[in-house]
Amino acid sequence: MSIKVGIVGYGNLGRGVECAIKQNADMELYGVFSRRNPDSFETLTGAKAYHIDEILNHKDNIDVLILCGGSATDLPHQTPELAKNFNVIDSFDTHAKIPEHFENVDKEAKQGGNIAIISVGWDPGMFSLNRLYAEAVLPDGKDYTFWGKGVSQGHSDAIRRVDGVLDAKQYTIPCDDALAKVRAGENPELSTREKHLRECFVVLKGGADAEKVEKEIKEMPNYFADYDTTVHFISKEELDRDHSGIPHGGFVIRSGKTGLSGENKHIIEYSLKLDSNPEFTSSVLVCYARAAVRMAKEGLCGCKTVFDVAPSYLSPHSGEDLRKRLL
Amino acid sequence: MSIKVGIVGYGNLGRGVECAIKQNADMELYGVFSRRNPDSFETLTGAKAYHIDEILNHKDNIDVLILCGGSATDLPHQTPELAKNFNVIDSFDTHAKIPEHFENVDKEAKQGGNIAIISVGWDPGMFSLNRLYAEAVLPDGKDYTFWGKGVSQGHSDAIRRVDGVLDAKQYTIPCDDALAKVRAGENPELSTREKHLRECFVVLKGGADAEKVEKEIKEMPNYFADYDTTVHFISKEELDRDHSGIPHGGFVIRSGKTGLSGENKHIIEYSLKLDSNPEFTSSVLVCYARAAVRMAKEGLCGCKTVFDVAPSYLSPHSGEDLRKRLL
Repeated sequence: MSIKVGIVGYGNLGRGVECAIKQNADMELYGVFSRRNPDSFETLTGAKAYHIDEILNHKDNIDVLILCGGSATDLPHQTPELAKNFNVIDSFDTHAKIPEHFENVDKEAKQGGNIAIISVGWDPGMFSLNRLYAEAVLPDGKDYTFWGKGVSQGHSDAIRRVDGVLDAKQYTIPCDDALAKVRAGENPELSTREKHLRECFVVLKGGADAEKVEKEIKEMPNYFADYDTTVHFISKEELDRDHSGIPHGGFVIRSGKTGLSGENKHIIEYSLKLDSNPEFTSSVLVCYARAAVRMAKEGLCGCKTVFDVAPSYLSPHSGEDLRKRLL
Repeated sequence: MSIKVGIVGYGNLGRGVECAIKQNADMELYGVFSRRNPDSFETLTGAKAYHIDEILNHKDNIDVLILCGGSATDLPHQTPELAKNFNVIDSFDTHAKIPEHFENVDKEAKQGGNIAIISVGWDPGMFSLNRLYAEAVLPDGKDYTFWGKGVSQGHSDAIRRVDGVLDAKQYTIPCDDALAKVRAGENPELSTREKHLRECFVVLKGGADAEKVEKEIKEMPNYFADYDTTVHFISKEELDRDHSGIPHGGFVIRSGKTGLSGENKHIIEYSLKLDSNPEFTSSVLVCYARAAVRMAKEGLCGCKTVFDVAPSYLSPHSGEDLRKRLL
């Protein structure tokens, strides 16, 4: 019997999950739950839409909910609230607040007897897994995470708030020099500026002062001041034509030593090159949704992360098949 | 209380495990068990050596055994035999025989109430994990494993058996062209010859016919005939000076599509660059030994593989700490 999935929130991530479910024969989309009026929008695949307020009426028909809201305001209350009644997966990605979110979700999931897997995606998610595996294997070492080349939504938004800016896209780019040093096992200490570049494509409003806008962007604290930042002014047409995608990716690299006195060096590198950040995140969410349902069926409950999920739970294939084909 | 580890078999792998245990503060080496007379050799760190026949006398003092014998003749009988009385880890790497080995070990481990984790290392092991994660995340895709650049012991041995050869080292090298196509998401069909090159460094015996040796190597079925093979004749001194290491590594790459009609491409790449193949394998074995002890303490038993072990079990750190630092 296939796993029935509900999607909560229908933006880029929700649509990505809708597409990803289609790629998994053991799963089916039960419906999409949104704060919007369900008659006011169409789903990509014709899946049914419901108002979020009705969700409890569907409790018995849904095996797992994939929460596709934002980490800033939606997930902190939605995940614990829904974990009372459903197995849930979210992609909560405010790293500093993960411990707090974990506690809140764990309490409700345990009371409800449900499984909740939080912070699922690629970072946090697949990158976190790779940091953990690499540290466990090479305890005497150092790890590095680089992001990009990819679009940072937060930084693009920050530019759009600058006076005189009509629209903008910001790319985070790992520095080749830093990557090369890390790959060579040099274990460098890298400043913020040495790790990533920031490249901005900006459309000005009519009459705006380009020089002033550029200065304001480059000196923006937290977002740009600590980086080497390049600003390109382009037309709205160019922005829409050349910068409408949401690519991303990055690298997790651990360099470590083994031997009686650390005489041998090893480099473990994991990298992602993604055409669509939200669609890849969605694909990770969907296979963890499968894991959540399995863990719940085994009688487990509470809040989990990717660290707590045995890899075989992610796959629709049997242990026997996996050992034969992939081990 | 620290985890007490016994090493069975004291070659390159056994010595690597001995060194790796030193890097893990929660583990200690109880002793080394060998078929050799324990008075006939010294351990690297001064660990006690015992004859393998005595091992049952030490049953109550050992939490887990790491089996460092070979896959051809040692592990097929050693792992099931020892799993009757101990939690065990092995690095059984004859891919085609893993299902059979799993069954044999599972039966004995279950009867003994012990955990046995088989086929732990990097391939099988970390590479297998990456094939599984990547397939689960991107079901509509194709994966590729490349090995090298690294020393293949089996191929080096095969050359040494050629008449007129005194000594030899063989390097397996992934083809740059093939790697580039895979990384570009082209999903090529690659023949054996297109994936890897074989480079051989050969020391001839006095009076041997170089041309004849080269021909015999290049035409050797299974080992070399299907590859582009280069043979370099060098002196014994050069071989010992430049080719005494045991480096290895490789790449697992999955290329897949997402979106409503597969419009977005994604590349997941995992790679290893290892100065010492046996020491890295040892490091993987040691963290899975920790996992085995934990799983056994939770009352689990039977044969497991890396697919069945939740990542957090590999780490000496608490879930709380891992979520805070690595998620």
